[in-house]
Amino acid sequence: LAVTIALDAMGGDHGPAVTVPGALAALRSQPDLNLVLVGQRAVLEKELARHAGADSARLRIQEASQVVGMDEPPAQALRGKKDSSMRVAINLVKSGEAQAIVSAGNTGALMATARFVLKTLPGIDRPAIITAFPTVHGHVHILDLGANVDSSPEQLLQFGIMGSLLVGAVERKERPLVALLNVGVEDIKGNEVVKKADELFRASDLNYHGYVEGDEIYLGKVDVIVCDGFVGNVALKASEGLARMISQFMKEEFTRTLFTKLAALAALPVLNAIRRRLDPRQYNGASLVGLNGIVIKSHGGTDTVGFEYAIRVAAEEVQNQLPQLIGARLTTLQGQSNPST
Amino acid sequence: LAVTIALDAMGGDHGPAVTVPGALAALRSQPDLNLVLVGQRAVLEKELARHAGADSARLRIQEASQVVGMDEPPAQALRGKKDSSMRVAINLVKSGEAQAIVSAGNTGALMATARFVLKTLPGIDRPAIITAFPTVHGHVHILDLGANVDSSPEQLLQFGIMGSLLVGAVERKERPLVALLNVGVEDIKGNEVVKKADELFRASDLNYHGYVEGDEIYLGKVDVIVCDGFVGNVALKASEGLARMISQFMKEEFTRTLFTKLAALAALPVLNAIRRRLDPRQYNGASLVGLNGIVIKSHGGTDTVGFEYAIRVAAEEVQNQLPQLIGARLTTLQGQSNPST
Repeated sequence: LAVTIALDAMGGDHGPAVTVPGALAALRSQPDLNLVLVGQRAVLEKELARHAGADSARLRIQEASQVVGMDEPPAQALRGKKDSSMRVAINLVKSGEAQAIVSAGNTGALMATARFVLKTLPGIDRPAIITAFPTVHGHVHILDLGANVDSSPEQLLQFGIMGSLLVGAVERKERPLVALLNVGVEDIKGNEVVKKADELFRASDLNYHGYVEGDEIYLGKVDVIVCDGFVGNVALKASEGLARMISQFMKEEFTRTLFTKLAALAALPVLNAIRRRLDPRQYNGASLVGLNGIVIKSHGGTDTVGFEYAIRVAAEEVQNQLPQLIGARLTTLQGQSNPST
Repeated sequence: LAVTIALDAMGGDHGPAVTVPGALAALRSQPDLNLVLVGQRAVLEKELARHAGADSARLRIQEASQVVGMDEPPAQALRGKKDSSMRVAINLVKSGEAQAIVSAGNTGALMATARFVLKTLPGIDRPAIITAFPTVHGHVHILDLGANVDSSPEQLLQFGIMGSLLVGAVERKERPLVALLNVGVEDIKGNEVVKKADELFRASDLNYHGYVEGDEIYLGKVDVIVCDGFVGNVALKASEGLARMISQFMKEEFTRTLFTKLAALAALPVLNAIRRRLDPRQYNGASLVGLNGIVIKSHGGTDTVGFEYAIRVAAEEVQNQLPQLIGARLTTLQGQSNPST
């Protein structure tokens, strides 16, 4: 099945220097993939000229004159940059010319613009951000990672349904196991929102595991973990920060003396294997679920390899027709809860 | 200055097998320390008989017939176990026979009992849990780590004041830099509680840095980070879980083949140095601040070394007269905000 994906080619900390070679790498590894590089044609052609394979018939450029700044207020980008690479790329999904959009640009602007142009699915109040985390056994998908704060119990249930459908489709799991993230001290087990959400999850037809605590994220006991965007964002970023610190400690210790440098040399293949297992690039590509269309957010600072991973996430969701799946499921649920309508 | 600390000697996953040798190690390293082992005398004497130095004049046993189970509901422990090792140890602080209590027991029961027996300081609604996290440069203290959920902006400010005073006293920092933990996407920057807390922090005389995000926890840019107990607990436990996973990956990779085992041997001193820097035992000992007395929670599963660290945290707070400091500061603040009373 041919897949066409629009890329916000100007977005991210490194812009076309990463998005263009990332796109070319994706074309090489995925024979059914078509890509649209959206951005300033002159800049993109100049970058393309630096790479082999840039003459692919599966690649085209779509002009967009503006660029959304990484720190620009989302409302300003939405109002004032109607010809930005981000906006034009999202428009291609709206018009059906592309089936997904990938951007490494300004997260807030991407959420605001995608929501404005594509709209949420019927029954979904707000989109959520979901991505995979590594675990001891494989990985787990967590949402919301920061698209929302102060979510209601009903919204958490919507997140659970969307997460379950995403993992079911992309990982081909029959009934993904879904959990709610909570805290464990007995007499204050959870806040009010989580307790009410727990009741809704129990009454739903999700394959519901119950609560998990923060340290269980990495144990791989469940397939989907649901939490408020504030909590999920802190968990994601604290984990990124800790992994970076441990990696810095290792570097410091292995470069301390001549002896430790020799030890590092001896241990190099092992250290590389560890690095590969923890490589954040293979977890790049978070999905904005709950929209009429597939929107993938790449880490702003990622490199070519990471951007290619984000394109791969988009292609998988297209092949599994994720928004249609979620939309159909929500329509069924609404029919059940409002039998008279 | 002589310091007397009461130990809940029956608490924790391993009970006296850890608390007794931990106590003896603390006595050896701290010449001004006196310890009271609270628990079942027969059990404690049997454990003491297994160790050298158990005849110290600075160690005594206080009988307590009951033990609080690690999973026992806190309300049940509070009502039904008035002669538990935990309760009797806290009573010693109340009566002034000890200046601090250390327990590796049931967290919920410890919080409920300590609050019931010792009461909160005037002006403090609820105690908070605070501990040090490692950073690239040193460490940072974070609170609340799970004593409260759904904290108000005013409570977050109380946490900030208590955290600042604790770090000021224990680390001898003149004006500790305090930050609020937040999420960063522009148009939904923080939830309502955090935004209001930000205003209160700005208006206070704390040395206020502003917001930090989850990945900045480990950068060592600030001395104190304030957050809701739900968020703090998830950040703490997610970090513990991730560190454990990375350590397991390292073990797996270094034991995979004969070659990787030899590499591990060559790298052993370096791997040990890394392990020492990340050793969670040196961060054992969380404080319940905001009470009329010093209460230290040790990790339930810690070993002798970790328990000794928790005793050290207690001794430092006693020497710095932490509750008196916090109490005096709060009295001053209340005088300022209610000038007519």
